[in-house]
Amino acid sequence: MLKVGVVGGTGYTGVELLRLLAGHAEVQLICVTSRSEVGQPVSSLYPNLRGVVDIPFSEPSVDQLSACDLVFFATPNGVAMKLTPALLSAGVKVIDLAADFRIQDLEVWEQWYGMKHACPDLVAEAVYGLPEVNREKIRTARLIACPGCYPTAVQLGFLPLLKSGLISSDRLIADVKSGVSGAGRQAAVGTLLCESSENFKAYAVAGHRHLPEISQGLTLAAGHETSLTFVPHLTPMIRGIHATLYAELAPDQNPSEETLQAVFSSYFKDEPFVDVLPAGHFPETRSVKGSNICRIAVFRPQQGRQIVVLSVIDNLCKGAAGQAVQNMNLMFGLAENAGLDRPPLLP
Amino acid sequence: MLKVGVVGGTGYTGVELLRLLAGHAEVQLICVTSRSEVGQPVSSLYPNLRGVVDIPFSEPSVDQLSACDLVFFATPNGVAMKLTPALLSAGVKVIDLAADFRIQDLEVWEQWYGMKHACPDLVAEAVYGLPEVNREKIRTARLIACPGCYPTAVQLGFLPLLKSGLISSDRLIADVKSGVSGAGRQAAVGTLLCESSENFKAYAVAGHRHLPEISQGLTLAAGHETSLTFVPHLTPMIRGIHATLYAELAPDQNPSEETLQAVFSSYFKDEPFVDVLPAGHFPETRSVKGSNICRIAVFRPQQGRQIVVLSVIDNLCKGAAGQAVQNMNLMFGLAENAGLDRPPLLP
Amino acid sequence: MLKVGVVGGTGYTGVELLRLLAGHAEVQLICVTSRSEVGQPVSSLYPNLRGVVDIPFSEPSVDQLSACDLVFFATPNGVAMKLTPALLSAGVKVIDLAADFRIQDLEVWEQWYGMKHACPDLVAEAVYGLPEVNREKIRTARLIACPGCYPTAVQLGFLPLLKSGLISSDRLIADVKSGVSGAGRQAAVGTLLCESSENFKAYAVAGHRHLPEISQGLTLAAGHETSLTFVPHLTPMIRGIHATLYAELAPDQNPSEETLQAVFSSYFKDEPFVDVLPAGHFPETRSVKGSNICRIAVFRPQQGRQIVVLSVIDNLCKGAAGQAVQNMNLMFGLAENAGLDRPPLLP
Amino acid sequence: MLKVGVVGGTGYTGVELLRLLAGHAEVQLICVTSRSEVGQPVSSLYPNLRGVVDIPFSEPSVDQLSACDLVFFATPNGVAMKLTPALLSAGVKVIDLAADFRIQDLEVWEQWYGMKHACPDLVAEAVYGLPEVNREKIRTARLIACPGCYPTAVQLGFLPLLKSGLISSDRLIADVKSGVSGAGRQAAVGTLLCESSENFKAYAVAGHRHLPEISQGLTLAAGHETSLTFVPHLTPMIRGIHATLYAELAPDQNPSEETLQAVFSSYFKDEPFVDVLPAGHFPETRSVKGSNICRIAVFRPQQGRQIVVLSVIDNLCKGAAGQAVQNMNLMFGLAENAGLDRPPLLP
Repeated sequence: MLKVGVVGGTGYTGVELLRLLAGHAEVQLICVTSRSEVGQPVSSLYPNLRGVVDIPFSEPSVDQLSACDLVFFATPNGVAMKLTPALLSAGVKVIDLAADFRIQDLEVWEQWYGMKHACPDLVAEAVYGLPEVNREKIRTARLIACPGCYPTAVQLGFLPLLKSGLISSDRLIADVKSGVSGAGRQAAVGTLLCESSENFKAYAVAGHRHLPEISQGLTLAAGHETSLTFVPHLTPMIRGIHATLYAELAPDQNPSEETLQAVFSSYFKDEPFVDVLPAGHFPETRSVKGSNICRIAVFRPQQGRQIVVLSVIDNLCKGAAGQAVQNMNLMFGLAENAGLDRPPLLP
Repeated sequence: MLKVGVVGGTGYTGVELLRLLAGHAEVQLICVTSRSEVGQPVSSLYPNLRGVVDIPFSEPSVDQLSACDLVFFATPNGVAMKLTPALLSAGVKVIDLAADFRIQDLEVWEQWYGMKHACPDLVAEAVYGLPEVNREKIRTARLIACPGCYPTAVQLGFLPLLKSGLISSDRLIADVKSGVSGAGRQAAVGTLLCESSENFKAYAVAGHRHLPEISQGLTLAAGHETSLTFVPHLTPMIRGIHATLYAELAPDQNPSEETLQAVFSSYFKDEPFVDVLPAGHFPETRSVKGSNICRIAVFRPQQGRQIVVLSVIDNLCKGAAGQAVQNMNLMFGLAENAGLDRPPLLP
Repeated sequence: MLKVGVVGGTGYTGVELLRLLAGHAEVQLICVTSRSEVGQPVSSLYPNLRGVVDIPFSEPSVDQLSACDLVFFATPNGVAMKLTPALLSAGVKVIDLAADFRIQDLEVWEQWYGMKHACPDLVAEAVYGLPEVNREKIRTARLIACPGCYPTAVQLGFLPLLKSGLISSDRLIADVKSGVSGAGRQAAVGTLLCESSENFKAYAVAGHRHLPEISQGLTLAAGHETSLTFVPHLTPMIRGIHATLYAELAPDQNPSEETLQAVFSSYFKDEPFVDVLPAGHFPETRSVKGSNICRIAVFRPQQGRQIVVLSVIDNLCKGAAGQAVQNMNLMFGLAENAGLDRPPLLP
Repeated sequence: MLKVGVVGGTGYTGVELLRLLAGHAEVQLICVTSRSEVGQPVSSLYPNLRGVVDIPFSEPSVDQLSACDLVFFATPNGVAMKLTPALLSAGVKVIDLAADFRIQDLEVWEQWYGMKHACPDLVAEAVYGLPEVNREKIRTARLIACPGCYPTAVQLGFLPLLKSGLISSDRLIADVKSGVSGAGRQAAVGTLLCESSENFKAYAVAGHRHLPEISQGLTLAAGHETSLTFVPHLTPMIRGIHATLYAELAPDQNPSEETLQAVFSSYFKDEPFVDVLPAGHFPETRSVKGSNICRIAVFRPQQGRQIVVLSVIDNLCKGAAGQAVQNMNLMFGLAENAGLDRPPLLP
């Protein structure tokens, strides 16, 4: 039985993580911490967990967390980096669902996140927790930087194309739509039902923190510099990310849609959580609600030069807590889909 | 391993049943039938089941179904009664999620459902599958009439009061709000997103088919005639039923809210799927989404003569497919919560 | 041209009022005040008003407001009562959209609103701005207490029954459902899209501030004490209130549904903003979206003793800003529907 | 007073047109036709029009329609072309809200719409009713082809760039998101609330009928061939289109964001219904709900080579009925904004 702690269990990635851990047969939840809610039962914030998670929120302390085999950080950016060194020293493994260890170039990180990094040496050790890219490294890692939600959907969609050499990598476009839960559970006017339902809008067009994370991943995959335009949008629904990706064929390439389909099917054929749809099908965000699955489709409209990839995930699950559990399973030699085996909820 | 067939798997109760059965370790799904979709993969209608339910829809036939230990009917009213006699004769147990066996008074049934009953003799044998009332009878039943969604929420809320003798039973009011999935998956103008979102309305005020079903249950519980006013409403959300119940205190009764709270807590104390909330808490439909739980709260506003009970369920789960699985578990001696143990999905 | 000021234009009743005033041919908007947003263009908060309301928010001051013929208060409770005496002295008429002048019994008001009243003498002078009850008094009033949203929907539905003598007035029940905009535009977790969409719940069952306001109106209409149970619910949509009202027939009464229908049609036959639906029709909240109309239907289900009335309004319009404009029209001798003549927005 | 008829008033563009015409002081509605609803009051389908449009649906007949000055067709594709020749001969002007006269190349039209054109000679005469492009031609036209919803949002966003010479026109991408009302009011499973709310998906990626219409407009504007990739998406809301447009800078161009902003502001400076937002602002679909306004913003993210334009409209208003009324106003010498002057509804 794996002893697990969750730091920062009050946000939506936190509650999703608790839901998944509660259904995981090999996990014992030791503590859930929250500075602001100390002493409150977890279920007072999250009534779905009544009778399921019955411990109260506790003060985060290295002492208590050191009794765990693994600690998840479902905290705002900048928290995990402060506690991680002590936990690793105590032999505790760490999965950070925030951005502290995602970007290898510290200067880039500090510029986008507006703070000084607390443990720059650990950034190099941290493994970027996208199993479809780093599965073997994850198995032996002490410290996982769990990818962001947008980066998961976008990278999985572009990877087969970048690896195939079919496309130019200097005109990539990611037009991505996220449910409102991506903005978190903070009281804010912009995410009130009356402001964000029956409404659709883009935001952060000038630059979003997930841009350097995605670019890092795409460039690594391509093996050379890439250029990406990334436009995120807020969609009037709770969960789900839909990435619509555009890539121009390399000048000398002219693949049929069958070839493209085969490139994707082959690339992901052994992946337990990536489902390439049959030709002509469109992935829907609801088809992955509550699950760790990414569904992908590829098109070449009008036999033109633009390839269109559609990639959907549940931002809280494959885009956050589910992927974190998938990483945990790999790190501790459990079945990769342990606790992640229930079908999505539809309708 | 229980061999299970599902007749009529194309509606929302059907897909919910398939989702739950797919996560049930003791169940082997033998067949899913649909006259209109024969040969189509189940997942072509329900993309959440891709990779989970990979058999195609088949023609319903007693031959094939007779290989099952249990057959669920997730069909329109009037279908189960035609196939059930043959299945029972073949030694197959039956759970009907529709209304064919719910009402003991055949005349009433035929009046409300507008058809002649095909096997009136089996109606008397059928057990009304509300485990909180009929648990022991369910264990030995061959044929279960699974309760309707409204009747489940309303009966569970009124039961403790009716049994307690605290209330008059001749002025019961059930003001109930249902998500749109209660109307099914038929193409219909009234349940289009553009007609039913950003909108709230009552319907069937003059008389809804669930009225005689609820009245039958309330009268049985009270041990004498009851009088109920039932007003259903369509709510702009997918899943969930919220019953707001009003009952007048009997003239000689004057219980405190603590007493009322104790009446409810005590009544349901051994129920695995009924959760009486702490005093002063309000149940939310989202707190049971995707789960078999009913959450209940009781109030005596302003120390007046009206008792108010709030009762929420997921209409597709405790109100249909989940309750059917709970019945199956009881009928076959499995753990009552087998396959029903995952927490609700929130947010 | 009427010179009008709006104090507190940042909330949802404020923006609705500005929208209506912008479409009113006889109104000149002099100022919109907001302490927190001084200097900001109104349209920076409300992009729908770009090019329509181009003045910035200003500091509220009696000096500036005294240049108006009429000042609306779209402020939190407790603000209007502080500025109203000075404005009235300056010859400015006042319509308060908040609760400061709604309740004649000061003790009751102070208990429910938790503050001392700043100008108790003016409470007696204030006219309760429900034109269907007080039209003539409104024409000559200096100070209007604009009714709350729930009280408008509930009183209009009960009025014909109370006046008719058909019902007992000691068992009134109002089960009312409101869109989320009723909770205002404050940043709060409970009204985030992720908390309040795909969800339905009751709240304030023990007692809501609108209860004494409604009771005052019902008792006045009945001419004797009434007893009301009032349960408000939060509905996952932006606008709209649906009141489902229950009243028991007086012991000696046995009206047909035709009689009931005639009672309602006759009662409201000259009302420009109350629409009694044809027998058997159900009012939908979307049928009044953005308009000042209240639509009503009456039923006697199963020929029982409970009368059911359904009453819908747009909470921001007939429940707040529209009713305020209707009052203004009456106070200044304008056509009662001036600026309120455009049809509801559907879908 | 303009005598106006509406053919096909049962769909969403029909009801929106009736709503707008009802608020238009210069218009007298003579008839609303619908084969399927003859004799039914218009308000029985559209309760928002009770007391506003009180005539019943009539059988469409040239005789009756000939009494009009203008006939709108809010019909499925292929209807207007059958009646238009007779109406024009009778001296009646025609505005078709469907696609019959939108595409000048008949071969292209017949291929995409799958039918033979009934009056090919009139296609050449028809004026494409985008006032921002064809205002003067519209004033004198007898026959208007009202643009599609996607084409309106996309063309308005690309026009200033194409005219400016700043961009390459061979890599245009339009990633467009539409509310569900764009799919019409037909009973269909795909647009049920339970299928299309809490969900986001692309559709028709291989080719959508609006593609040739948009391409025709872009090529006309550019003065030479253009190449467009167009991906439409279904968004879980009722109204609104959000176009996110991508265009690559021409190799020799390097404009600042200020220059781009000036290009847009200048291009639309006299347009009553196009609002270029201040730099850095994002248009929201709700900011134009129920109005004829198109709001636009332009960005050059990260000073890269891709220009991003955001363009929002209400698909039923500027994307259909509102634009039709704007055309009518121009054709009959009325104020261009007559009947279109009320602010959008928010929230």
